[in-house]
Amino acid sequence: MIRKISLAGCFAAAVLACGPVWAQTDAEVMRSIYDEALYRGEAYENLRYLTKEIGSRLSGSPQAAAAVEWGKQLMENYGFDKVYLQPVMVPHWVRGDVEEARIVSEKVGTVSVSIIGLGNSIGTTPGGISAEVIEVTTFDELRAMNRSDVEGKIVFFNRPFDNGLISQGSAYGGAVGQRGGGPIEAAKMGAIGCVVRSMTSNIDDVPHTGGTRYQLNVPQIPAVAISTIGANKLSHMLKNEPSLRFFMETSGKFLEDKLSYNVIGELRGTEMPEEIIVVGGHLDSWDVGEGAHDDGAGAVHTIETLRLLKTIGYKPKRTIRAVLFMNEENGLMGGRKYADVAEEEGQKHLVAIESDSGGFVPRGFTLDADEEKMKKLLSWAHLFTPYLTDRFEKGYGGADIGPLKNQGVPLIGFKPDDQRYFDYHHTAEDTFDKVDDRELHLGAAAMASLVYLIDTHGF
Amino acid sequence: MIRKISLAGCFAAAVLACGPVWAQTDAEVMRSIYDEALYRGEAYENLRYLTKEIGSRLSGSPQAAAAVEWGKQLMENYGFDKVYLQPVMVPHWVRGDVEEARIVSEKVGTVSVSIIGLGNSIGTTPGGISAEVIEVTTFDELRAMNRSDVEGKIVFFNRPFDNGLISQGSAYGGAVGQRGGGPIEAAKMGAIGCVVRSMTSNIDDVPHTGGTRYQLNVPQIPAVAISTIGANKLSHMLKNEPSLRFFMETSGKFLEDKLSYNVIGELRGTEMPEEIIVVGGHLDSWDVGEGAHDDGAGAVHTIETLRLLKTIGYKPKRTIRAVLFMNEENGLMGGRKYADVAEEEGQKHLVAIESDSGGFVPRGFTLDADEEKMKKLLSWAHLFTPYLTDRFEKGYGGADIGPLKNQGVPLIGFKPDDQRYFDYHHTAEDTFDKVDDRELHLGAAAMASLVYLIDTHGF
Repeated sequence: MIRKISLAGCFAAAVLACGPVWAQTDAEVMRSIYDEALYRGEAYENLRYLTKEIGSRLSGSPQAAAAVEWGKQLMENYGFDKVYLQPVMVPHWVRGDVEEARIVSEKVGTVSVSIIGLGNSIGTTPGGISAEVIEVTTFDELRAMNRSDVEGKIVFFNRPFDNGLISQGSAYGGAVGQRGGGPIEAAKMGAIGCVVRSMTSNIDDVPHTGGTRYQLNVPQIPAVAISTIGANKLSHMLKNEPSLRFFMETSGKFLEDKLSYNVIGELRGTEMPEEIIVVGGHLDSWDVGEGAHDDGAGAVHTIETLRLLKTIGYKPKRTIRAVLFMNEENGLMGGRKYADVAEEEGQKHLVAIESDSGGFVPRGFTLDADEEKMKKLLSWAHLFTPYLTDRFEKGYGGADIGPLKNQGVPLIGFKPDDQRYFDYHHTAEDTFDKVDDRELHLGAAAMASLVYLIDTHGF
Repeated sequence: MIRKISLAGCFAAAVLACGPVWAQTDAEVMRSIYDEALYRGEAYENLRYLTKEIGSRLSGSPQAAAAVEWGKQLMENYGFDKVYLQPVMVPHWVRGDVEEARIVSEKVGTVSVSIIGLGNSIGTTPGGISAEVIEVTTFDELRAMNRSDVEGKIVFFNRPFDNGLISQGSAYGGAVGQRGGGPIEAAKMGAIGCVVRSMTSNIDDVPHTGGTRYQLNVPQIPAVAISTIGANKLSHMLKNEPSLRFFMETSGKFLEDKLSYNVIGELRGTEMPEEIIVVGGHLDSWDVGEGAHDDGAGAVHTIETLRLLKTIGYKPKRTIRAVLFMNEENGLMGGRKYADVAEEEGQKHLVAIESDSGGFVPRGFTLDADEEKMKKLLSWAHLFTPYLTDRFEKGYGGADIGPLKNQGVPLIGFKPDDQRYFDYHHTAEDTFDKVDDRELHLGAAAMASLVYLIDTHGF
């Protein structure tokens, strides 16, 4: 295999015998990418800035606007060939000042519990609501009840993660339906409020927020997540006292939609500039914590992917495009806008790769495409074995790149280890200190390596 | 494949179709082991007790004695067939009360740096020592100097981890020689003190202790580890001011050797009780932090391995023996004693497995044995693929089981991911909160699964 790569690729390669630059093997180029990432990686410092200097950045917030400016300036400073903003209108939900809940028992008195309003939820009436509680673990269980037994009450969805599943992502997948669809199902039965068990296998007092939704012609009722300790307490107390009451007061609401942006940077292709390899993560986060793993890590992975390729002197055949998507958490407007524009303009996307599973130690990639693509991807797995990142499987691509699927674009998800991800996901604890510098940089190197292979060999 | 397994193995297997108990496949037995570990694992709570209720447990300390009693009682409470203590005399090193160091510059004044005495080091003379500093990165560099240029000075070994290495264990291997042999090499050149860069890729202010040693007929000089921030500062200041002085005062010393114990528990073999499969970790730790990853994790992995097998109702053909070794950190007297007794008594060890690489998410196992054993081990790798723990490679077994190698015993090391291990290793930060419950339990299940396979199919 012979290809051109500039001399810049060589100075990084002190640890390997740097052969003639036109004759570097895939393994040698990957080693250069990893060396640059591990000796001189910048993703971790970029993440520090994004999380500690800007902080959480819910769509529509001043911090989200600051993050847009940060992403643009950073990519410009790196000298990417083209850096621009893609306008997109986003919902602007705010939590408000009041968030409180307690169990009111005739037997043991009042017991405080840790809750957090679900994103997109309406607030309660001022002064809060108080009602008896119906506990269920599935929608079917709720639907099988008599409407009159649910009416006027608060529905408590308490299905835990299945701890027997090895992937925490799968456990999340098995539980998160309660959070997204709970308020609709509860309201259909006449409930006035909705409490959802936090999406984690941990038993702790940290509540996990996340998006919920309403449905046309179904009343909107306020919804909160309760910590797993709180959920277990409520469940336990309900067994002894089914008539206890739950009080909750929240103040979430939507303001006017806001103009925001996807932030885009490109390395222009030297041979087939019209063919696009897109890599992305999302720039917005929830309003608690710092959005470090979700998805600050993906944002800096995305930028670092291009920086690594540029810094080792790689000249891509195709255009490599980094996209920091806006509004993944509570609307997906950025991902939708990106796909709409791509379709309108007849852009040719070879593949879309997303990092939105945290900045943990890499394990591999999942592919949402046909068998032929899977074969191609698997043919490169051995190159990732020295980096312990060779688990290539069929699976999910990513939320932001999802809308490209209708256009036939193969989707690839970056897969770090996920055992700790739902310790922090959508909580006040998703902070910079939970990210390890080497784990983050190994992820960026894996992504850059995959982009290099796809660009060089096609897909 | 047909074998007997008691009904107890079945109640745990709700998620799989539990076939006739006499016909469980290896995959089904492993699923039972993992279910027990993930739904009802006890290793994490055991680790909490060991680290938070007992704490650090350097050989000879009251906490080490408490840990021996804890291990024995725990294994007795679990109803293992035989639980006993194996006496072993251990060194009793204490840090003392004084540990202090600073850079004394004529240009910028006095600069404090974070240091920690190396284990087994003598203390300085009371009041401390102060001398000029010679910085080197290798022993060869030091040996190439004129003795007169080193005499009366402090040697500063400043070779960092090689961050380009993917395994942090390999990076440690490339740097730790400075810590173990530094004081000898420095003293041979007439130095009066030794400062070693902390064994971590992190740049932070946490110093890492660890064992050092002296040599007969070479003067013993005091040795400390300096944080990586301190090391970088010292190195930087030396470039501008080679004549600066370093002050250090420490008070480490050996007390009388102490009687201590390896703690041993067994599940007795039903067919070949004289053949022993030994699993182990070490019970002692350094005196800072809580010895959570090093090696509380290994200690609770070891006990949990037997508990899991017993709880699912598995009746081993061979004797499965758990050993909590004493004194790995600063003497290895427990590992040596164990091997000596095994040899004296002509015990037949089929294999020895150690967990001493932390409680992080499992990746696989490394084998220190011949090709035939490697083939056997690899034939089981596919069974571990659903658990993402199928990286089986040639490599290191473990320090405590190391002395068994002379008797021809195959050694196996449990290998969790190691990116974060040297963030905490031998520091005040190796505490319980750094361990994730699921990661710890996945490790115990992997170890129990391997023991099951070896017992059932031979090795």
